[in-house]
Order: sequence, then structure tokens, then C-alpha cells
Amino acid sequence: MYSFNNDYSEGGHPLILKELFSTNEDQSAGYGLDEHTEKAVKLIKQKIDCETADVHILVGGTQTNLIAISSFLRPYEAVIGVETAHIAVHETGAIEATGHKVITVPSVDGKMTTELIASVLERHKDEHMVKPKMVYISNTTEVGTHYTKREIKKLYEFCQENNLYLYIDGARMASALATEENTMFLCDYPECCDAFYIGGTKNGALFGEALVIVNDSLKEGIRYSIKQKGGLLAKGRLLGIQFEALFKDDLYMKIGEWSNKMARRMKVGISTLGYPFLYDSYSNQLFPIFPNEVVEQLSKEFLFSIETKVGDDHSCIRLVTSWATKEEEVDHFLFYLSEQTNKEV
Amino acid sequence: MYSFNNDYSEGGHPLILKELFSTNEDQSAGYGLDEHTEKAVKLIKQKIDCETADVHILVGGTQTNLIAISSFLRPYEAVIGVETAHIAVHETGAIEATGHKVITVPSVDGKMTTELIASVLERHKDEHMVKPKMVYISNTTEVGTHYTKREIKKLYEFCQENNLYLYIDGARMASALATEENTMFLCDYPECCDAFYIGGTKNGALFGEALVIVNDSLKEGIRYSIKQKGGLLAKGRLLGIQFEALFKDDLYMKIGEWSNKMARRMKVGISTLGYPFLYDSYSNQLFPIFPNEVVEQLSKEFLFSIETKVGDDHSCIRLVTSWATKEEEVDHFLFYLSEQTNKEV
Amino acid sequence: MYSFNNDYSEGGHPLILKELFSTNEDQSAGYGLDEHTEKAVKLIKQKIDCETADVHILVGGTQTNLIAISSFLRPYEAVIGVETAHIAVHETGAIEATGHKVITVPSVDGKMTTELIASVLERHKDEHMVKPKMVYISNTTEVGTHYTKREIKKLYEFCQENNLYLYIDGARMASALATEENTMFLCDYPECCDAFYIGGTKNGALFGEALVIVNDSLKEGIRYSIKQKGGLLAKGRLLGIQFEALFKDDLYMKIGEWSNKMARRMKVGISTLGYPFLYDSYSNQLFPIFPNEVVEQLSKEFLFSIETKVGDDHSCIRLVTSWATKEEEVDHFLFYLSEQTNKEV
Amino acid sequence: MYSFNNDYSEGGHPLILKELFSTNEDQSAGYGLDEHTEKAVKLIKQKIDCETADVHILVGGTQTNLIAISSFLRPYEAVIGVETAHIAVHETGAIEATGHKVITVPSVDGKMTTELIASVLERHKDEHMVKPKMVYISNTTEVGTHYTKREIKKLYEFCQENNLYLYIDGARMASALATEENTMFLCDYPECCDAFYIGGTKNGALFGEALVIVNDSLKEGIRYSIKQKGGLLAKGRLLGIQFEALFKDDLYMKIGEWSNKMARRMKVGISTLGYPFLYDSYSNQLFPIFPNEVVEQLSKEFLFSIETKVGDDHSCIRLVTSWATKEEEVDHFLFYLSEQTNKEV
Repeated sequence: MYSFNNDYSEGGHPLILKELFSTNEDQSAGYGLDEHTEKAVKLIKQKIDCETADVHILVGGTQTNLIAISSFLRPYEAVIGVETAHIAVHETGAIEATGHKVITVPSVDGKMTTELIASVLERHKDEHMVKPKMVYISNTTEVGTHYTKREIKKLYEFCQENNLYLYIDGARMASALATEENTMFLCDYPECCDAFYIGGTKNGALFGEALVIVNDSLKEGIRYSIKQKGGLLAKGRLLGIQFEALFKDDLYMKIGEWSNKMARRMKVGISTLGYPFLYDSYSNQLFPIFPNEVVEQLSKEFLFSIETKVGDDHSCIRLVTSWATKEEEVDHFLFYLSEQTNKEV
Repeated sequence: MYSFNNDYSEGGHPLILKELFSTNEDQSAGYGLDEHTEKAVKLIKQKIDCETADVHILVGGTQTNLIAISSFLRPYEAVIGVETAHIAVHETGAIEATGHKVITVPSVDGKMTTELIASVLERHKDEHMVKPKMVYISNTTEVGTHYTKREIKKLYEFCQENNLYLYIDGARMASALATEENTMFLCDYPECCDAFYIGGTKNGALFGEALVIVNDSLKEGIRYSIKQKGGLLAKGRLLGIQFEALFKDDLYMKIGEWSNKMARRMKVGISTLGYPFLYDSYSNQLFPIFPNEVVEQLSKEFLFSIETKVGDDHSCIRLVTSWATKEEEVDHFLFYLSEQTNKEV
Repeated sequence: MYSFNNDYSEGGHPLILKELFSTNEDQSAGYGLDEHTEKAVKLIKQKIDCETADVHILVGGTQTNLIAISSFLRPYEAVIGVETAHIAVHETGAIEATGHKVITVPSVDGKMTTELIASVLERHKDEHMVKPKMVYISNTTEVGTHYTKREIKKLYEFCQENNLYLYIDGARMASALATEENTMFLCDYPECCDAFYIGGTKNGALFGEALVIVNDSLKEGIRYSIKQKGGLLAKGRLLGIQFEALFKDDLYMKIGEWSNKMARRMKVGISTLGYPFLYDSYSNQLFPIFPNEVVEQLSKEFLFSIETKVGDDHSCIRLVTSWATKEEEVDHFLFYLSEQTNKEV
Repeated sequence: MYSFNNDYSEGGHPLILKELFSTNEDQSAGYGLDEHTEKAVKLIKQKIDCETADVHILVGGTQTNLIAISSFLRPYEAVIGVETAHIAVHETGAIEATGHKVITVPSVDGKMTTELIASVLERHKDEHMVKPKMVYISNTTEVGTHYTKREIKKLYEFCQENNLYLYIDGARMASALATEENTMFLCDYPECCDAFYIGGTKNGALFGEALVIVNDSLKEGIRYSIKQKGGLLAKGRLLGIQFEALFKDDLYMKIGEWSNKMARRMKVGISTLGYPFLYDSYSNQLFPIFPNEVVEQLSKEFLFSIETKVGDDHSCIRLVTSWATKEEEVDHFLFYLSEQTNKEV
């Protein structure tokens, strides 16, 4: 059964594996102090056009979020996110486990706004309440939407005016970068937030997320925090080699583009068959709504997750594409869907 | 410059890489729910001869220790270790960061004894002090020594009599298993402790440590803790594939044997030249003592760490071997050392 | 300016002070191991009709909540409360600081329902999310409402069916007990929850909250947790003496009755003048809605807090009574209010 | 049976109780924002001769230590103390529960030295180990000894040179101030450390410890931390009133002097009878060594704790005096001891 369940169902992109293979017997320093990591960091700094940033490559997304947030905040400070934020829902309370409250605000499209942030600030006035100090956003969001540069810039300006940090979770940043009318490029990130991470796991790496700290005041001691939270990989070279491969010939962008291309093909096909979508996504996650019988039929041939029920008779499912998604499987999905659609009618 | 600095200077054993390569394009479930992990767990249970154990494969050692210990203990409970214990010294307070005190006791050979544990129990009597609840040992220890089955059994019986858990850090378990007169086999572990982990990173894996929980009362909720602490790898298959490779044809033992063989060759050579050792090690870590001038000369040709000064004129260095250690490099080291030795004289 | 700002504006009830004075020079054991605490615990067990309960008297409410909750829950377990819950809003993230998420649900009257709990359980299905394990309610609630026995019993049955603990914050329990048609008596609490606390600070004590643990499985090690979180008072007798005084001649009930009587007098007066209330309270907290000009006038003569704006022209204020509230000040408030009301018209 | 068990066996000094009584019915703001607290803080600032210090009055010592230390340190930073340090032994891992390691060093007299600190710094070099950032000392120490100004100044200079904070636990500061040849006055503290606390519980208050923060960089957000850890007393006036009473007519010093006078009387008597002391104390804690039979006889008439065995036949006991210690009970103790002594011979 072919899986559109997520973007980490396969291993790593072949070019990445090739590099891991070819360097395997070399000796190198441990814990990210090797030459590959050094080169990867250099390449990333070039791409984001920010020599002064600190870059630390970690294994996974939850790990990166909990290390960054717990390192940046003082004990009583809290982070604001939308209700669907990954840190609020799908990290088993990882942020709270480091002592910090995640304040959530409702959002229809998975995106944060200055109005939502302002509503939190109004409610938090003295020391009987936590002190909101950071805004967390994801790009693309957990529901497949993405931010324009204008939107992120507005958020960041509001944050700066209100003494808040802006932190961007880039687990699916490649897909955001590869949306057709993208206005928020890699080199824009350092100007628009205090810290962010460039996700590898969901964009062709075996694993790996590159945490970029732009704000000088947040840089100190981060390697201590990484080690303390169990995030310092002994064979750190593995992270360096992968990000070197991702960034030396624009592989990172190419993977994002392929993922989005496959998603777009799927979206056009589904739309043509007359089905609506719960979220207006241009990235590698799609949220179409089907009658329950269609969902049932699809689930006999494909793997995917059910996002939510829509009324009594319909459901929204999540379809995800990746570097490894095969065009013929997308077409197979669409053909099979059209068959079910005709049956329905 | 050839490195004897540690056992994670190279990538992974070629047989492991081969498996990663051959399975790369398969689709599988995420987060350790894939078939490879299932097979690896099955193989491990066979090797340890314990069907009822729970096995969870994690990325790194500090991560494994902090997840296990924080999951097993109640907030006011503490863990006892020797002063050189990895959790006490080299994990940046990872255990304390989860809220638990590490009580340390002095030990000349890196090994715990029932007398040392008893001394802690005597001092901790009421609720003004933490409650000692777990004993942490490493096999091999941080200074290269190893335990006999008799020793571990005695510790475990003492723990059971005193309502303490025994947890064994097996970062270098393969080297312990491969010591010439080893009496503590893989199948003995489940009978001699409440939980332990089988280290992969320092024995040929790219990364990976298999946490084995034997005590039923400690099993509940561990996957929640793994996720919460950032230890649930999205492409969990990578861990399954590696441990499958390590355990399907005794590769795990073979790597341990090779590491120890190289260390023994080194030890015999160094001894023959008349140098003493700080710790009596039969494993893949050696702690020879050299005059400072010899250390200086060695450091021009080889990478290693200095463990400690010994008087004003001598130093103890740490030499580590692995699956990747080359016999000719060991011989080169010994030849070079003999040259320096003659110069000295 | 007379204050209706809260129920802890004065010191302690004179009968309590008298006892503190008369016992002052006696010697006693520290840390709650004294005879007064023993007697207080005995009296409380009689009043709640539960010999098997464990009772620990602590200094404050936030302290009691954080100690109880962090002692009862495993690291990845979470507590569910309504959006106005004290632990969710007014304890500066104290629960999160011990590592646990507080999951909130919306409630119009400050009260929890089984439907609200069920909605949380439905959304939390696997180890990528925290595990809901405890329901937190306050009686009276933070908005002055109170539960019937039937309501709490229904909650508890639902909790038991779903493997959840029910914990009741009784900071203002005396006021709940003293509502006119109260059906939930002190002796009902042990049958209707796993743990609760009987608030002293807001009912005439200088300070002090008696934590009662009914569920046997939650009793172990609580004194360790109390000490660890800084809650073990050296001169613990002070807590014992106060609760002895509160419970030996029904002083606890009498204070609750007086507070409610004063609030009722106030409520009737305000209602008579034609003002509505935001919450339907029969306890010592009232939430009347006034035109903003009236609020401004009132604030020249009385201290109180503004709860929330109601439209552009009105505000809801909070008025609180206590053992120390003077009848003539209530009447003065009502008279003054009637004057402002007439002006308005 | 008369108790020399500790300095918190009785209630509060009569002058303090009188003030609590006379102000009891006044209304005041909660949470330490009242006039009494304001006055107490002003008085303390005058006595320590430091207008720029921040003063926060808390309920207990463990609470004060855990709030201060967790507020001052970043997650991976650790605090250094001697092996007998209160935070290391008698606070149930309170500091670790906030995430920080307590590094201990051996000390024969309960006092820290620059050599001991230096030995820690030498061993902590990189991010695999915690980062030592604070030195914790107590004055008087846990074993009754006290520091000279010269000693503390030397420690502080060393701390400043090494980028460490110096924090002084003053649970028994009054007794230190009242030692006969004291050179470290209240007004010296702000110049000799970054933060300290002035203990009330063990010097005549019902409870209360005044945390003084001198270093500007440590002041921010402390009230948030106090609230979050459960340390913000609702009726905070109780703390203000007590410290006002302690500092307005030098009551604080007078109590310390009386305690020490009683201890000195006891010490002279015990010495005259020929008994040695384990620690050379001039404060209100004495550690005489008696034959076990004498200890047994004494325990029939007096309460005290046994500190440690000394060889097989002797034990060191701890005797503590306070504001409430009666001269005739001291004399009774000495007379009874002399009787036992004669029997022995």
C-alpha cells in the first residue's frame, strides 16, 4: 500500500546517502566539531546571507524546539503559539517539561497574527501570570499554509515593539520556500526573526534540523543546553555531511520543489474531481474533504491520516508528499479517486 | 594524524551502512513502529533470552539515560553513582535537569560496591534528604574496567533487599562482553538488573542505544517520555535497521572482539615497554601513564585525550579502539612509542 | 478607603490569634510533627468522616496545588481545568514549572462538565500528545459559582471510568459549604474525589491550606515533595494551631457563613438597584456589572478589582467579603451605590 | 523534657507577636505590596547601608534558596557548596528539582575556600559538564562556624575574577553577627556578595527570610519566580510586620546576642567538664563530643540531635540555643551533665 502519510516514510535522498557512504571511514572529531559540520554551517550562513548567525545542527524537531525555547526563556517566561502549533499539540508537553507554559490562541488557517498576540499581552499583566516572551510560528504551518514575507515582517516588528522574541519552526521550510509565489526567501529569515530552524528530516535528510540563532543575546551557552537535553550527537559529522549535501548544490530547494510539484499535481486532480479542501495549502501537505465512503475506499489502497470529521458524512484527510513521492503513485491515487467518485455518483 | 581519541571517530560499520542503503527507498511507518525495529527488538529479546522485556531504541546515550531515569523515578528520588559515572560528570547535569539528584560515591576502579551503596543509605533517613532509589553502573565503566556476573548479581541482590532499582549503562557493553574472561553475558542482564541499555554508537552503529526494561513496573508510559524529551526519531527505521544488522549475525560481538583485540595488542606493547596503567582495563579503553615528554611526542603523531596528571612529571592518557581501528596504526603507535622510549633513556 | 478587593486583606480571626498567642512559648517539634498539627489532623478527619485520609497542612494555595499535582502525576501526564482555573491563569505557570501541561477547556460559569473532559480525551490519543490524567476543579470556582454534590459525583464517576484523578481546590471551600442550598458537605468530599484541600487563608487563617489525600496510591512520599518544593514550615505548629482553632468549634463554618451573609446582603442591595451580575454567585465573591461612570465613582470610595469590560460602556467588577467584612461598610457601599445610581438617572 | 534540638522550637518573640496582634484588623494590600513590608524593606536597606538593593521577604529558607538560585542561573549552570551545605544535604534536592546541579567539595570546618572553588573550576572545562556559576556559603555555617569579613571578601574577589556569583545563606546570620569578635557586619554584606538572605525563622520570627539582591543583573523577574514557586504569601503583611519589628529597635541583634550568650554559657560549662567539640563554634550551635553513656543519660532529660558517631564509644551531639532559651535550663543541663560526668569517673 503506497503511503501519503507523511514526508518521512522513506530513508534519505540518494545524494545524501552517497556522501555518508563516501566519507564513512574518515576519522573526524565528535560532537559537531568536525570539518563537515563546519562546511555545512558555512554554506548555511551563505544561503541565509548572515555571517554573524550561530548555527547548530540537531537530530530532530521536538528536540530542537525544546532546546531552543528552554535556552532562550527565563523560568517564568512563556511562548505563544496558535492552537494547532506543533509545540502545543504534538510534542507531548516537551516545552512544559522544561518548565514553560505554551499559551495558545485560536487561528482559522494555522497562522499567527499581531491581533492574536496582542490579545495575549492584554491578559498578562503582572507576576501572578506567566510573562509572554516569545512567539512561535511554523512555516509552512501544521495545516499546510505558509506566510508571506510581509506577514512575517509585520509579526517581527510587533514582537520587537513588545519585547518578544520571534522563533520560526522550519520543519517544512523547504516546502514554504518552494511555494509558487513565495516571497520569504532563506536570506530573509535572519532579518525577520530572532531564531529559526531549517528542517532536514522532512526534506530528504535521514534526520537533522539546523538551528539558526540570529539574536546575539540568545547565543550564549546553547551547546551546554544541547548536551544537557541529550541533543549532542556523538558522530555529529552525520549531521554536517547531510546539510553539506543539502546546501552545496541547491539540493534543499530541489527537494522542496519536487514535493510541492507532486502535491500540486494531486491538488489539481482532486479539485478537478470537485472536492474541496479544509485549508488553502500550496505546500506539500493537502487537506481534502471527501465523503466517508470515499475515504474508506481510499484507505484500502493508500496510507494517510484522517485529520478531522467534517459533519457526519465527510472527513478531511491529510496527504503529504516528499522527495520520494512517485509521480505514477500520485496519478494512481487520482485515477483511483476518480473511479470512487464515479461510483459515488 | 591517526586518532585513538574515542570509539566514535568514524562512521558506521560497513555491514550497517549496506543495510541502510538497501532499504532506503522502502516506505515504512515512522517513530519506531516499522518492521525493522520490530525485527531488531525480536532479535535483541532472543539474545538476552527475555521475551517479557520492553525494548526501545534511542539515538544517544545521554538521551537514553535521562529518559530512563526521569521516567523511572518519582520527583524526590535520587540515583547513586560512582564519582566517575557518566551521568555525574559528562552529561552536563542532564539528570538534574529532569529534577533528580545524582548522589556520588568515591571509587578507585570506577566500580560500585554494596558498601558504597550502604554508606549512602545510612546518610539518607528522612524527608529532609532525597530518597535514594536507583543505583547506576556502567559496564564497561568509564575507566575501562568491567564487572563480573558475580559482582553485578551481588549489587542487584543488595538493591532488591533495599528497594532500589539497578540500572546499567551499556554504552560500551560490547567491549565488556568481549573481555577475555567475561562471565556476564547478554542473557544474564535481564536477571541482574531492572533496566539497561545496549550501546550501538560506540560499537559500530552510526548512532543508537537499545534501552531494555525488565522490571514490569517501570515499563508504563516510556514512549510518552521518549517523545517528550525529544528522543522519538521520525525515521525510527534507521535505528531498527542498525540493530537488526548488529544482532542478526553476531556482528555486535564481532565488533566488540575486534575493538578489544586491538586494545590488547596496544596494552601488551605498552606494558612490554615498561609503562604502567592507571586502571586495570581489559576492554577497549586503556589508561597508560607516560612521562610528560613522551606524551608530548605522541601528541605530534596521534590524537588522544589526557585523562589526568600523575605527579609533576607524568600524565595518564586515554587510548580508545573501535571496529575501525587499524592493526597497522596500533603497530605504528607502538613503534613510535618505543622510539620515544629509547630517546628518553 | 474600605476594601472589598479580596478575602485576605486583614490578618487572622481573633480566635486564631488568641491560640497562637497562648501557645507561643511552648516548645514543640518542628516541621508539622507537633501535637497541635496532630490534633488538627484528627479534627479534620472527623469532620470529613474519613479516618484513612492523609492530611498535610501547607502555607499557601499555589504551593499546595503545585506540590499535590507534581507529586500525583508522572512526567508526561497533564491536568485538565477550565479556562478560568486558578492553576491555568493565576499561578505564573507553577504547574508547568514542575513539568506538566495544564489543558484548558472553555466554560461559561467557571465549572467543569463531563462533556468538556470528554472533548479533551477525544483529542489526546497517543504518545505524541500529553496524557490527560487529572481533572482540577475549584469549589467555589474562581468566578464565585459552586458545585452541587450531584455535579461533583458525576464528575468523579466519569473520572473513575476514564482513569483520571479528580482534585478539588478548596481555597474558598468554606464559602461553598455555606451557600444556602449547599448539598456538598465536608464529609462528602472524601467520597467524591481523590484529593482536595481545605483553604484557610481565605477563611480567617493567617495562612494555611489543609491538603487531604484520599486515594491511597497518591499518598506515598508527599512529605518529600513538600520539603523539596519549599513547603515544609519549620514552625509547622503555626499551621496546626490555626486549623485546630478553625475546626474545634465549627469556627470554619461560622466564618464561611458570615462571609456569605455579607455577600448576600450586598447582592440583594445591588440587584434591588437594578444591576445585573456576570456570574450567578451565591458565595463570597460577586461580579456585578455597572456603567463605567458608576465604577469610577465607586473606586473613589472603595477598593475592588475590575474583572472585565462588558461592551464599551460597562464593566464587571469583583467584590469579595470575608470574616472581617463589616456590615456597616456593606451598607455604606450600597448607600453610596444608590446615590451614584440616582445621579446616573 | 527541655529541648535544645533547634532554634525553632518555640513560636515568635513576644515583641513580634505584639505587632501582629495590634495590626491584625487593619486592611492592607496582599502579596507583599503593603505598607509594613515597605517599611521593613526600608529598614533593612538602612541597616545594610545599600539603597539600591532589592529586598523580598519570603516564608522559609529552602524556599528562598530554591527561588533565588533557580532565578539567578541559566539551565546548565551549577552551584558550588561544601559537602555539609544545607542545599546539598537537607533540602531534599530542591535545587536539583529546579534543574541545577549542586557541586560539592569537602571541607573540615563547614567553610568554603578559594582553593576548593578553584578545584571545581579546573575540572569543569567544556559543554559536556555543567558550568559552575555560583558559590553558595552559609554564615553561620551548618556546623556552627562563621566567616570573617576578610574570608568572605577573599571569596567574593575570587568569584568576581572567575565570573561566579556569591550567594550567602543567612538562616543563622544573626548568630554570626553576634559572635564576639565578629568582623562581618550587616552593612558589609552588600559589598561582599551578589545576593544573600537575612534569616528570621531561626532568630525569633514565626517565619520569614529576607532575600537581598545586590547585583543588578539578578533582580529582574524575581517576583514572577517567587509566585511561580509558591512563595508569594497572600497576607504578605505578616512578613513585613515581623521584619519591621526585628529591625526597628535592633531586636534582630539582641536576639542573636541572647542566643549566643546562652550557647557560650553552655560551651564554657561543657569545656570546664573536660569535653571536646567537633567544630570550633562561637555561635548558637554547639557540637560537643560525649561518651555514648553520657549521651544516653542526657537524652532522658533533654531533646537534641545526634550529629555523628565519633569512634565506637563517643558521639557528637548538636545543641542549639535561641531567643527563647532559658538560662536556668542551660544551667540545669550543665548541672545534670556534671552529675553524669562524675558517675562516669
